[in-house]
Amino acid sequence: MSKRPTSPAELLSLAEGGAAGDRRALARLLSFVERGGAPARELSRLTYPRSGDCYTIGLTGAPGSGKSTLTAGLIGEALRETGSPVAVLAIDPSSPLSGGAILGDRVRMQEHALDHNVYIRSMATRGHLGGLAAAVPDAVRVLDSAGWPLVFVETVGVGQVEVEVAATCDTIVVVLNPGWGDAVQANKAGLLEVADVLVINKADRPGVRETKRDLVHMLQLTGEMSWMPPIVETVASSGEGTGALWQAISAHRAHLESDDGLARRRRARMADEMERLTADNYSHLVAAALGRLAPGDVGLVGTVASETVDAGRDLVERLSRREIDPPAAADELVALVARLALRPEASS
Amino acid sequence: MSKRPTSPAELLSLAEGGAAGDRRALARLLSFVERGGAPARELSRLTYPRSGDCYTIGLTGAPGSGKSTLTAGLIGEALRETGSPVAVLAIDPSSPLSGGAILGDRVRMQEHALDHNVYIRSMATRGHLGGLAAAVPDAVRVLDSAGWPLVFVETVGVGQVEVEVAATCDTIVVVLNPGWGDAVQANKAGLLEVADVLVINKADRPGVRETKRDLVHMLQLTGEMSWMPPIVETVASSGEGTGALWQAISAHRAHLESDDGLARRRRARMADEMERLTADNYSHLVAAALGRLAPGDVGLVGTVASETVDAGRDLVERLSRREIDPPAAADELVALVARLALRPEASS
Repeated sequence: MSKRPTSPAELLSLAEGGAAGDRRALARLLSFVERGGAPARELSRLTYPRSGDCYTIGLTGAPGSGKSTLTAGLIGEALRETGSPVAVLAIDPSSPLSGGAILGDRVRMQEHALDHNVYIRSMATRGHLGGLAAAVPDAVRVLDSAGWPLVFVETVGVGQVEVEVAATCDTIVVVLNPGWGDAVQANKAGLLEVADVLVINKADRPGVRETKRDLVHMLQLTGEMSWMPPIVETVASSGEGTGALWQAISAHRAHLESDDGLARRRRARMADEMERLTADNYSHLVAAALGRLAPGDVGLVGTVASETVDAGRDLVERLSRREIDPPAAADELVALVARLALRPEASS
Repeated sequence: MSKRPTSPAELLSLAEGGAAGDRRALARLLSFVERGGAPARELSRLTYPRSGDCYTIGLTGAPGSGKSTLTAGLIGEALRETGSPVAVLAIDPSSPLSGGAILGDRVRMQEHALDHNVYIRSMATRGHLGGLAAAVPDAVRVLDSAGWPLVFVETVGVGQVEVEVAATCDTIVVVLNPGWGDAVQANKAGLLEVADVLVINKADRPGVRETKRDLVHMLQLTGEMSWMPPIVETVASSGEGTGALWQAISAHRAHLESDDGLARRRRARMADEMERLTADNYSHLVAAALGRLAPGDVGLVGTVASETVDAGRDLVERLSRREIDPPAAADELVALVARLALRPEASS
C-alpha cells in the first residue's frame, strides 16, 4: 500500500478499472476507504452518483455462531438463484487483541475464492475516523459503482459497532445458536430490534425449541411490526436450511420493494450516515481549535486563524485553573468551532 | 433508580451527603453520572470547583490477567502506606453479550467491602453519550469532591475504549501475563504507549524472562522518554510483588509531582475531555437539525426553529435523490448546525 498522495484522476482511473472487472483496482479502492482521509472523501464523491442499485444483506451474531459458513452457503444460493455476481465484505471491528480469527474464518469461503462471480474482502478500521460503521456504506458504494449488485456484509462479534454496521444494510440477518442464553443476550445487545430475519444455526444441537419459543416471545413484546422476522433453522456445516434462509431473505427484500419501504429505510440510513460524517468533520474542527490537529488532517480543515487556536488553548488553561467548569467550557468551544465552520474558506 | 427529574438543590444536598460520608448519597450521585443527560451536566458543574486533589491510578489489561486480584492487593498497600481512604471504579465497557464477568471479579475485592475506608463501585455506560471515557472523569470528580484522595480505575478488556478510560488517569498500570504473545498484543492495542508502570502478573508461570525481554525491546523502540516504565513481576494471588508494584506507582507519582509533569498531563487530559464533551454537544445539535432528537434530549438543545429541521430533512431528501454527495451534504449540515450553535438562545 503506497503512502503517496492520490490524485482524483488516479481514483477515477481506478474506479473505471474496478467497473471493468480489474480486481486489483477494486482492492486498492477499498483500501482507500479503509484508510480514510481526503482520498476516501474524494472516492465517496466519485462513487455516490454511480451507485444506488446494489442490495446489501448484513449478517451478524456472536463469534462461533457459524456466520462465515452460513455466508459461504448463501453465496452459493445467490449465485444459483440470481445468476448475478456476489461480493462479501467481512468486517472486523474487534480490538487488535482478539484479532486474527477472521482470517481463519475466511478459509470457509475459499471454495468460492476462485469463482470470478465472487469477490471476498476483509476490512478493518484504521484511519477512518467515523469508524467501520461510517466506512461500510462507502465500501458498498465502491462495489456498487463497480457493478456488484449484491453485497453480503458479515461482522465478527456482537458489540455496538457490529449492530451499527449491520444496521447500514437493506436486510439484516441475525444468527443465533440453540440454548436459552443466546436469544436473551441477542435481545440485550439490541440485535432483535434490527433483525429482519432470524437464524438458529447449528439446529442439530439441543435447545432449538426453547430458543425459538424465547425469540417468538421477545418479538411479541416489541409490539406491532409491519414485518414479522421469520425464524429459520439451519445447519450451515451440512447446508441444511440454507435454501430456506435465502428464501426468507428474498421474501424480506420483496416486502421492502413492494411499497416505498426500501426507499424509506435507505433515507433513514442516509441520515445515520450524515450523523457519522458530520461527527468526523466536527472532530477535525475541534482538534484544530484546540491546536491538536494531526499534520495529515490539516488539509481537511484548511488554515485556522491563530486567534482560534489561542482561544481554544486559553479555554483549557481556564479549565485547569478551575475558573470555568467542563459543561460551560464545552459550550464555549462549540461556539468557537461553529464560527470556524462558518468562515468563508471552510467549504471543501 | 427513580426516573423523576432531579433539581440542582437535590444534587447539591446529595453531594453534601456524599462529602459527609453517606454512601447511599455517593452511590446515587454516581448513578446520575452513569445515566448522563442534564443531571450529569449539572453534577459536573457542581463537583468541578470542589475537585482537583484526587490522584487516580488506572489499571488495564486483558480479561483474566488478574487485574482485580492485583487491585485488591493494591488497596491493602495504599491503606497501609498512606492511611488514607481508597475508592475503586470498576469500569465495564464490554458489550452486553460478554457482560457478567465483572461482578464475579468483584468478589475478589470483597475482603475490603466492609472497610469504611474503602469504596468499590462498578460502572457501565448507559445514557452517557460520550461513553465511558467521558463519564469516568465525572465519576472521579464526584469521589474527589466527596473527599476520596485516591481512586483506582480498573477496566475490563483491552479495546480502544479501555485504553481511553485508562488514559484519563494520572498513573497508568498495564497488566500482562507471561508468554510471548501478550507483550506484542499489548503493543498493538496501544497499551505500551500509555503505560507508566508495566506488570507481569502470574510471574510464577513460565515465560516471564521472554515477556520482559520483549517489553524492554519494544520500549526501547518507542524512543526517548522522560520516564522509563518499570517492569514489575507479581503473583497477585499470593500477594508476591504487590508491595513492589505500589512502590513503582508511588515512584511514578513522585516523578510527575517533581516538576510540572502532573499539571501538564492533566491539562492534556482536560483537552481530551473537551473533545469528548463537545462531540456530545454537537451530536445533539445534529440530531436536532435532522429532526431526530430524542424527546428527553430536547432540553439540552433548546427550541430549534422549524426552518432548521426543514433544511436538515431537505438535505437527506437531496441525498436520496443523489443530487448531492455525502461529503458535500456533511459540509452543509456542519454549517447548518454551526448556525444553530451560534443562535443567541443556544448557551445553556
